[in-house]
Amino acid sequence: MSVHFRKLALIGIGLIGSSIALAARRQGLVDTISIATRRPETLEEARELGLGDSYTLDAAEAVQGADLVILCAPVGAYEGIARAIAPALPSGAILSDVGSVKAHVVKVVGPHVPAGVSFVPGHPIAGTEHSGPSAGFPELFANRWCVLTPVEGTDPVQTEKLAAFWRAMGSKVETMDAAHHDMVLAITSHIPHLIAYNIVGTVADLETATKSEVIKFSASGFRDFTRIAASDPVMWRDIFLTNRDAVLEMLGRFSEDLSALQRHVRTGDGAALEAMFTRTRAIRRSIIDAGQETAAPDFGRPHD
Amino acid sequence: MSVHFRKLALIGIGLIGSSIALAARRQGLVDTISIATRRPETLEEARELGLGDSYTLDAAEAVQGADLVILCAPVGAYEGIARAIAPALPSGAILSDVGSVKAHVVKVVGPHVPAGVSFVPGHPIAGTEHSGPSAGFPELFANRWCVLTPVEGTDPVQTEKLAAFWRAMGSKVETMDAAHHDMVLAITSHIPHLIAYNIVGTVADLETATKSEVIKFSASGFRDFTRIAASDPVMWRDIFLTNRDAVLEMLGRFSEDLSALQRHVRTGDGAALEAMFTRTRAIRRSIIDAGQETAAPDFGRPHD
Ligand SMILES: NC(=O)c1ccc[n+]([C@@H]2O[C@H](COP(=O)([O-])OP(=O)(O)OC[C@H]3O[C@@H](n4cnc5c(N)ncnc54)[C@H](OP(=O)(O)O)[C@@H]3O)[C@@H](O)[C@H]2O)c1
Ligand SMILES: NC(=O)c1ccc[n+]([C@@H]2O[C@H](COP(=O)([O-])OP(=O)(O)OC[C@H]3O[C@@H](n4cnc5c(N)ncnc54)[C@H](OP(=O)(O)O)[C@@H]3O)[C@@H](O)[C@H]2O)c1
Repeated sequence: MSVHFRKLALIGIGLIGSSIALAARRQGLVDTISIATRRPETLEEARELGLGDSYTLDAAEAVQGADLVILCAPVGAYEGIARAIAPALPSGAILSDVGSVKAHVVKVVGPHVPAGVSFVPGHPIAGTEHSGPSAGFPELFANRWCVLTPVEGTDPVQTEKLAAFWRAMGSKVETMDAAHHDMVLAITSHIPHLIAYNIVGTVADLETATKSEVIKFSASGFRDFTRIAASDPVMWRDIFLTNRDAVLEMLGRFSEDLSALQRHVRTGDGAALEAMFTRTRAIRRSIIDAGQETAAPDFGRPHD
Repeated sequence: MSVHFRKLALIGIGLIGSSIALAARRQGLVDTISIATRRPETLEEARELGLGDSYTLDAAEAVQGADLVILCAPVGAYEGIARAIAPALPSGAILSDVGSVKAHVVKVVGPHVPAGVSFVPGHPIAGTEHSGPSAGFPELFANRWCVLTPVEGTDPVQTEKLAAFWRAMGSKVETMDAAHHDMVLAITSHIPHLIAYNIVGTVADLETATKSEVIKFSASGFRDFTRIAASDPVMWRDIFLTNRDAVLEMLGRFSEDLSALQRHVRTGDGAALEAMFTRTRAIRRSIIDAGQETAAPDFGRPHD
């Protein structure tokens, strides 16, 4: 059975929102697309790009008659949007989102969801370093994971319908608990970004002479950290503000391990260092075996 | 004036040694190449690949009559090699190396260098994830930096001759103090590798269920850390054992900065986080302006 929605409402139309618009249209998954965003300039840009069928600055207006609503704004804006659209959400609709954190989204959006609306949060693990309505392209989600974190009591038929929508756009779909998602993403994405920002910050504080040589020889490893640390500051601020507990938990483990490694360096424990550097190879092998390695490294392409 | 050597002796014939053999031959920089290594199998492999003109397991034999000797073995083996070849080094020869650390090399090799021999340590900042005699290729050094760290009192004519040799193989050459090299490489290469090994180790300790999901979603950032952490354990052990002071100094700064960042996450200081994530962009810009960015990220290709 092929999936179909009458009206898709996208609230926020940047990289992710515009990619959904283009992919859903190309695959014939929807009859009409309504687009809402915050700033008139952005709305105008979306209109010029022909991303939807109707355009408004009023999110509540956009969701009228929609059977699928996807929040595509920064996570920090979700609560206000949820409050605004709640009265206008049609019964039977699916409400979803694309935010990079999930427990927080359940917490701030959940209470506003009216009875009769299925709330199925989602997170497409796909991105580029660009943003805004012109950054989107329909292949963004091809072969990328999309995680859905339905809340307890959600009609499984609705969850499956949303999963089919993502699969039709090329995604592989996985369903899990919101807290579990946040823990997994903390270590696969949030901590790597935090560390990359941190080391670039350390370099920024070096005296000028050393700094210019670090830049010259940056290809030896550092450069790739700067690429990841060039991701959007507002999006990453929101991620660290809203996934605090999981980030602190994983950061605690990382720091403990780093202290141990530092001690091996300090005491010159070659055997412990070599054992550690050998042990990590098994993880690498698992990633290759899982088909998650590609010829083209895309470190720093922010998939958060 | 084009640079030329009568006899090049390579002690150790892995990735770097074989790449030098191939590049020097292709550019016509030497008349003959003699190769020494530790294990008979490796020597046989080098012979089958036709990398040189003479092959021996005796490093002292290899350097006889050589006017350029380059140590291409792991840094941990340097002291023994230096002691063995010292009596056989011809007066007027240049003795160099390719080790990823430099102050330690000056310390352990320097005392063995006979009068009349110019000791000019070097470090080509180029590499791949492969090793052994079959891993080399003549373009490895093209457009990559090679740092020379001549010791005080070295004849500048000899240093310039070695610099010309590297330039003829395609390198850009920079001369600096050994201690300064080690500090710059500690932050551009050694700390990034240590951190990558560390986060992969943290993941290796997670319970099995979480670990398998981390592997599944590794494309969101973590994967690229595993690539860097797949580098040769013995080489990296040697680097951390021999560049301890610079590594600990830079790691101390990194950890201090990470504590501050962690505090911002804990207290939910969004303004501080956003400011930090914005500030790091200037470094990124400098790297692009310095022409050090390429379309193809090569994070994890170990250039140490
Ligand atoms: N980029 C990635 O790599 C990535 C990957 C996976 C998930 N995500 C998630 O996707 C979401 C959007 O990210 P993005 O990369 O698409 O960002 P983006 O390109 O910056 O787009 C954000 C969009 O939201 C709009 N917006 C901002 N505040 C709003 C508000 N209060 N009400 C309505 N619209 C508002 C912006 O338009 P205005 O100009 O009108 O403000 C813009 O159209 C975030 O929640 C992020 O966590 C991002
Ligand atoms: N790989 C990189 O990315 C990179 C980059 C820049 C600099 N470097 C430096 O280059 C050097 C070599 O690295 P590599 O990548 O070429 O390593 P590699 O491919 O593993 O080669 C090392 C070579 O040294 C030989 N060897 C080991 N112990 C020896 C000994 N006691 N006497 C003589 N030969 C010995 C090995 O042969 P056997 O089989 O006979 O032991 C092998 O031929 C290291 O000092 C490293 O720090 C490496």
